[in-house]
Amino acid sequence: MTTGVRRRMGVEERRQQLIGVALELFSHRSPDDVSIDEIAAAAGISRPLVYHYFPGKQSLYEAALRRAADELAARFEEEQEGPLGGRLLRVMSRFFDFVDEHGPGFSALMRGGPAVPAGGACPIGTATTTNAMIDEVRQAAYEQILAHLGITDPPARLRLVVRSWVSLAETTALLWLDGREVPRAELELQLVHDFVALVAVPAAYDDGMAGVLARILADEPADGPFGELVGRLVALAPPQPPPVRVPQQRT
Amino acid sequence: MTTGVRRRMGVEERRQQLIGVALELFSHRSPDDVSIDEIAAAAGISRPLVYHYFPGKQSLYEAALRRAADELAARFEEEQEGPLGGRLLRVMSRFFDFVDEHGPGFSALMRGGPAVPAGGACPIGTATTTNAMIDEVRQAAYEQILAHLGITDPPARLRLVVRSWVSLAETTALLWLDGREVPRAELELQLVHDFVALVAVPAAYDDGMAGVLARILADEPADGPFGELVGRLVALAPPQPPPVRVPQQRT
Repeated sequence: MTTGVRRRMGVEERRQQLIGVALELFSHRSPDDVSIDEIAAAAGISRPLVYHYFPGKQSLYEAALRRAADELAARFEEEQEGPLGGRLLRVMSRFFDFVDEHGPGFSALMRGGPAVPAGGACPIGTATTTNAMIDEVRQAAYEQILAHLGITDPPARLRLVVRSWVSLAETTALLWLDGREVPRAELELQLVHDFVALVAVPAAYDDGMAGVLARILADEPADGPFGELVGRLVALAPPQPPPVRVPQQRT
Repeated sequence: MTTGVRRRMGVEERRQQLIGVALELFSHRSPDDVSIDEIAAAAGISRPLVYHYFPGKQSLYEAALRRAADELAARFEEEQEGPLGGRLLRVMSRFFDFVDEHGPGFSALMRGGPAVPAGGACPIGTATTTNAMIDEVRQAAYEQILAHLGITDPPARLRLVVRSWVSLAETTALLWLDGREVPRAELELQLVHDFVALVAVPAAYDDGMAGVLARILADEPADGPFGELVGRLVALAPPQPPPVRVPQQRT
C-alpha cells in the first residue's frame, strides 16, 4: 500500500514526476550510472513502485529522452523577425542553455543512448528508438532554419549544408561539455559564423548557394554577427587575390 | 564434415575470408539486413561452420568493423610534403573512395552499429564497442591533421575546430551517400574549404587561431584549394566593410 501523499498522485502525474527526477539525476551523471534505486529514493517512493509506472530503466529512460527531445526542439522556435544572424544567435544561446542544464544526459543521448546495463534486461531496439528521437530533433532544427530562410523547396547543396551545420552544432556542444575550456558565448557566436561560412563555401561555386548567401546577408546590419565576420575575414585575406581558375566541378 | 577445399583453409585464413565476404555484402546492404545464412552461402560454407569461426553475427560484425576501421585510418596517412590544401584534398579523395566502396556498411557503422536483431542474442556492450572503434578512427584523423599542421600541443580552440571538422566530414559523407545528389569531387573540395573556413572563424577573434590560419595559408599557391576560396569569398564580400565592434567574448 502507498501512503496518503502517494495515493493522491495520479498515474500520469507520478510518471511525469519520475521523468523529472530522472532528468535531474541525468544532468549530473550519465544515465548509465544512475540506478532505479536512486531514482526511487529521489522521488520518495519504493523501487517496486517505480516499476509499476515504468516496466524497466529503459522505458523510463526513453520517456525522459522523449521529454528532453521535445524540450530541445521547442528551443529552436524563434520569431521570424529581424536579421537572421541575431535570430540564429538567440537560438544558439537557448541551445547551449539546454546543453548546460542537461550535461551528462545530453552527452549520453547524443552518443546513441546508454550502454546496455551489465546483467540488465536486453533493450531490444534501444539504439533504433534513441536514434529516431535524435533524428526528430535534428529534423526540427533543419526545418526551423529553412523556414527562417524562407525556402520551401531546398536544393541538394543547401539541404546538405543545413544538415551538416546541425551536426556541427551538436559536435561543438559535446566537445564544449568535455572540459568547458572555451567560453560558451564564444561558441554560440562561432556557430552562427560557421553557418554563414558553410553556406559561403559552396556559394563561391554554385549560383543557387550564392543566392542563399545573398538572402542571408541582405538584412544584416554591418555590426551584426554576419557583417562583423565578413569584415574580419576580409581583413585576414591576402591584399589582392589573383585571378582564379575554374574549380574541378561537374554541376 | 567439410570438403577438401575447406579443410585446406586455416582458422585465421577462414576468419579473414568471412570478414571479407561480410564487408562485401555490407557494401550493398545494411548489416542489419544481411543474415549469417547469406554470409555462409557467399563464403561457400555451412551456417554452423560460420559459427565455428565466429560465435555469432555480432562477433563477425565486430571483426569486420575492426578491419574496416583500420583500413579507413590507413587512408588518412599522407606524406608531409607540399601545400596543406593539396594534402587534405588527397586525403578527402581517399576518404570518399572508402565511403563509396563501403556504402551501407559505412552508414550503419557511423549510426552506432547495427540495431539489435529481433530475437537474436543480446549483444552486451555492442554500442560501446562500436563507439570505441569509431572514436579510434576519429582520433587517427585528428592526430594526422595536427601532425600535418606541425602542432604538438594544440590549444582548446584548435582541438575543438579539428574535432568538429572531422565530424563534419563524417556527416557530409553520410549525407552524400543518401542519394548522391552532389558530385563527390565537389564535396571533397568543399570539405577542404570548410576546414579553412572553420579555422578562419575563430581566427577572426583569437590570436592563436590566427597564427594557425597563417601557417595553413603560408605555403598555399594562389591557385590551390585554399587560395582560390579566399579569392572567391573576398569577391562575395561587401565592397567596403565598416569598422567592427569588439565581439562579446570572455577569453
